[in-house]
Amino acid sequence: MNNPTAAMIVIGDEILSGRTQDTNSNHLAQHLTLLGIDLKEIRVVSDDEDQIMRAVNGLRMRYTNVFTSGGIGPTHDDITADCIAKAFGVPINVRQDARAALAQNYENPEVELTEARLRMARIPEGAILIVNPISKAPGFSMENVHVMAGVPTIFKAMLAGLLPTLASGQKILSETVIVKRKEGDIAKALGRIAKENPDTSIGSYPYYDGGKFGCNLVVRSPDPKRLADVVNEIYDAFADK
Amino acid sequence: MNNPTAAMIVIGDEILSGRTQDTNSNHLAQHLTLLGIDLKEIRVVSDDEDQIMRAVNGLRMRYTNVFTSGGIGPTHDDITADCIAKAFGVPINVRQDARAALAQNYENPEVELTEARLRMARIPEGAILIVNPISKAPGFSMENVHVMAGVPTIFKAMLAGLLPTLASGQKILSETVIVKRKEGDIAKALGRIAKENPDTSIGSYPYYDGGKFGCNLVVRSPDPKRLADVVNEIYDAFADK
Repeated sequence: MNNPTAAMIVIGDEILSGRTQDTNSNHLAQHLTLLGIDLKEIRVVSDDEDQIMRAVNGLRMRYTNVFTSGGIGPTHDDITADCIAKAFGVPINVRQDARAALAQNYENPEVELTEARLRMARIPEGAILIVNPISKAPGFSMENVHVMAGVPTIFKAMLAGLLPTLASGQKILSETVIVKRKEGDIAKALGRIAKENPDTSIGSYPYYDGGKFGCNLVVRSPDPKRLADVVNEIYDAFADK
Repeated sequence: MNNPTAAMIVIGDEILSGRTQDTNSNHLAQHLTLLGIDLKEIRVVSDDEDQIMRAVNGLRMRYTNVFTSGGIGPTHDDITADCIAKAFGVPINVRQDARAALAQNYENPEVELTEARLRMARIPEGAILIVNPISKAPGFSMENVHVMAGVPTIFKAMLAGLLPTLASGQKILSETVIVKRKEGDIAKALGRIAKENPDTSIGSYPYYDGGKFGCNLVVRSPDPKRLADVVNEIYDAFADK
């Protein structure tokens, strides 16, 4: 049986302008790898309805899970929830359980839950809330699309609650062999090893530390025995003797 | 006249597994912003022909420039150049100027330019080379698709040579105002300011530093006078008095 798959949509002009380095997708990637959910694609799009809709509709049919980060706050540029409702063709309104979650932040919710704040309690019809233990404003899952905050601490906290509810797959084990040679020196033999072991995946990731070239060879397999076999074969072929 | 646009395709399983944090797209984003080229979308895809082809063909028609990083080395998992040739429907072969660039690395190129290394001199027909001052193996531009290395130091060096050759746009100026309040407290007034100044763009980027919430308000405009006006309006509305 194949592993479940996933895509990530990072929503925010601040990533595309270079002002902010996205770290949410790397955090997600590491956790999905541990669960055996294969992350197939990451897209970063701007705070723009057309762009968000195209990404959501392009990916939700193709992958088991779609995760989004960003654009669910109270300000005028937070349009993610509306885009998700539109993508699924459902209404979006203030929901009482979301309002109750938000209200935990305030001594006097009747006064302090302003119209702007109530935007964060607007949830597309049929969605399941994702708990936000930090700032309370919930995320939500609309079918297979999981909508979370962009602030990294809040994204991580929401994800920690969400992941145990998702179907996981067969965990892929990996081991890295560092070879202090140029890729070109090992490419032929490495290609042969890759060809002879089609049940494992071997990636070569070159590095340049300012003075020397080398590469990290990453072997991946669900089977610990096969992983060890291929890693040993690579050591035999390239170890500094 | 509208600014030129751009998309970035980051190619590599190591990003999607979470092993490596992509930094090339942030570097690109910062430099495009300085040139007035609007980065509209970033995609991260795996070392997989279908995925790469779909991204290249989906984006090259839509944007002025497409930049790629990764997958142009000598090993079996480096398939980017072949995918670009296939996407454009042109042949790919070892090109003599690319071979000559590579040969600079070796005292005895006739012997040392192995078959594996020569893979890096295979260039789609009709492409223009992008100089690689570090490890010599060139990138290339195929029409509006600019193909560069994934190793960050090499990506940066290639990009430094490429960017001056591209049409630039009107630079967007930006200024950031830090407001130490929750977004919900300022959202209504900020929405009014955004609505009253449609010629500027105002983004609100909340942060949570573990104890306190606040937001960075980023105002963007090509006109320094209008930028200053709106920044002053925001200071007047939200400054701690």
